[in-house]
Amino acid sequence: MANTSQEELAPYLEEVEGALLSALDEFDEPGCLYDPVHYLFEGGGKRIRPVLTLLACECVGGDRAVALPAAVAVELLHNFTLVHDDIMDSSAKRRGRETVHVKWDTNTAILSGDVMMGMAMRLLLRSAHHAPRPLDVVDSFSTGLIDVCDGQALDMDFMQRADVTADEYFAMIERKTARLLEMSVAIGANVGGATNGRVEALRMFAREIGIAFQVQDDILDLFGSESFGKQPGGDIVEGKRTWLVLECARRVRENTSATEEHRELIYSFFAQNGLPRESVPAVIDMMHHYNVISDAKAIVENRTSEAFAHLGSLPETEARDRMSMLGKLLMNRKS
Amino acid sequence: MANTSQEELAPYLEEVEGALLSALDEFDEPGCLYDPVHYLFEGGGKRIRPVLTLLACECVGGDRAVALPAAVAVELLHNFTLVHDDIMDSSAKRRGRETVHVKWDTNTAILSGDVMMGMAMRLLLRSAHHAPRPLDVVDSFSTGLIDVCDGQALDMDFMQRADVTADEYFAMIERKTARLLEMSVAIGANVGGATNGRVEALRMFAREIGIAFQVQDDILDLFGSESFGKQPGGDIVEGKRTWLVLECARRVRENTSATEEHRELIYSFFAQNGLPRESVPAVIDMMHHYNVISDAKAIVENRTSEAFAHLGSLPETEARDRMSMLGKLLMNRKS
Repeated sequence: MANTSQEELAPYLEEVEGALLSALDEFDEPGCLYDPVHYLFEGGGKRIRPVLTLLACECVGGDRAVALPAAVAVELLHNFTLVHDDIMDSSAKRRGRETVHVKWDTNTAILSGDVMMGMAMRLLLRSAHHAPRPLDVVDSFSTGLIDVCDGQALDMDFMQRADVTADEYFAMIERKTARLLEMSVAIGANVGGATNGRVEALRMFAREIGIAFQVQDDILDLFGSESFGKQPGGDIVEGKRTWLVLECARRVRENTSATEEHRELIYSFFAQNGLPRESVPAVIDMMHHYNVISDAKAIVENRTSEAFAHLGSLPETEARDRMSMLGKLLMNRKS
Repeated sequence: MANTSQEELAPYLEEVEGALLSALDEFDEPGCLYDPVHYLFEGGGKRIRPVLTLLACECVGGDRAVALPAAVAVELLHNFTLVHDDIMDSSAKRRGRETVHVKWDTNTAILSGDVMMGMAMRLLLRSAHHAPRPLDVVDSFSTGLIDVCDGQALDMDFMQRADVTADEYFAMIERKTARLLEMSVAIGANVGGATNGRVEALRMFAREIGIAFQVQDDILDLFGSESFGKQPGGDIVEGKRTWLVLECARRVRENTSATEEHRELIYSFFAQNGLPRESVPAVIDMMHHYNVISDAKAIVENRTSEAFAHLGSLPETEARDRMSMLGKLLMNRKS
């Protein structure tokens, strides 16, 4: 790691951006279908998943150029989920710009999302042709798609319920957040000709990082981010069932000496599917009182260490160092 | 053909239904995601596309049992398009039952549609494993998906325009209607190990049948169907840009002696995106006057003959006779 700097990831990002643009060039008519797709990618994005695909391919000794179309496919799948999730969550903004269903309409957003799935499959095949077991590449993709839908369905279902358990929460984020990261590395590794053992090590790395990332995201949401214009406690206001609120609710319920104020806050959160913004500080105080925030931080740390332990089982290569750095960048973010 | 009866297709339909049910059995949790998928298939359907897949496999000498998962995949893809199209078209009923977005809600219909795509891909792979060129199977599938989205986008776009040409109409139905039939046979033929020439002959058969079917569908819609509870001229009321109305408009516009009444009908159709139900008989009279309906029937006949000519280029087998019969059944329907 000593000699690895963040700049080493720049060529990967450039390659992804270039391949993405030329892939999009193949799709322009009808404009009512593809304009929103172009718009979406002009809005930028961190491109974490496609870089994971390229690095995973290199980690197992493959040539990342071969994995580039698959990397673009992964980014298309990710953005497909964003377009449809934004409809379902009625989100008006994404990366500081209007969402597709707001800028155009819901029908356009449904259909443009759908076609991105087809575009993704077509690109995936270009890499799969070079893989020793081509259908494994497609299989990872279809499992990723199924699981991310399962995760989104569970997330929406949780909003109807007050009895979601911590285990259920982890099962949900494993699908909704972690699975696409897992898929990204599995596809890269398969294209690179990895053994099953190495595919599995990379998968476990991505899964644990994904879960750690989501729990950290939930913690960061509590405190907001001035520079990113996010107000504190957005999830509390929206009634999101995060581990923090679920675990806090459990501790309040099981604690016979819990105050009436705490019981009331928890009750209202579930009964009204969220709390007014002015209640956010009281909820954060309550979470501190029950050690929920410190325990969440411990989960993030443990899951992150787990992740790096899996990565450590791979042979020491430059690519592995870069993968490790990408993981650390992900976990040290401030927004 | 002499010895081929409709009953010969019964085993194909039974196999499809059985495979569909056991495929659905693999997907039940979360119920909020998969209940709508089960509901959709309980509603029945003609299962034309999966039978095409099985027959195409046999037509090229393959074992149809191997193509069965792919046949189910094709039916899943078809139903995915129905669920999303029903949202976009605000359709309240499908096969006599409430549509998914009405019985549940739009979010559920979006997500259940999405997951059907993943389910379809997973099933497709089970057949692809047996194909000599497995990725060709997946490629047909992804092209089918892209083109059916293109077709739906064009169809929606046409509703904003008064200057759609007959060529544009055929380009649209080739994607929206014919491509999934074409994909169904291409997948079956690829799984069955067909040469490129035979895949192409089957594709052309399915494409021409698909186009003939759609134009016939447009003609049948004019006259409605008492036994199926369809009122005459639904497409005219909804403002659908069919070949009939586009060609009629062109003939009225180009005919200097066209009556004021005819000009007014055409003008109102496009200006108001449809006409009141009481105008339907006048529109049908106008179409007769300009020979549009008889010309449409001629298109149906020519396209159908084309289709069977392509089929005739395949070796004479029982499967080819059955495929031919399925084509005839499709074209002789009354609703």
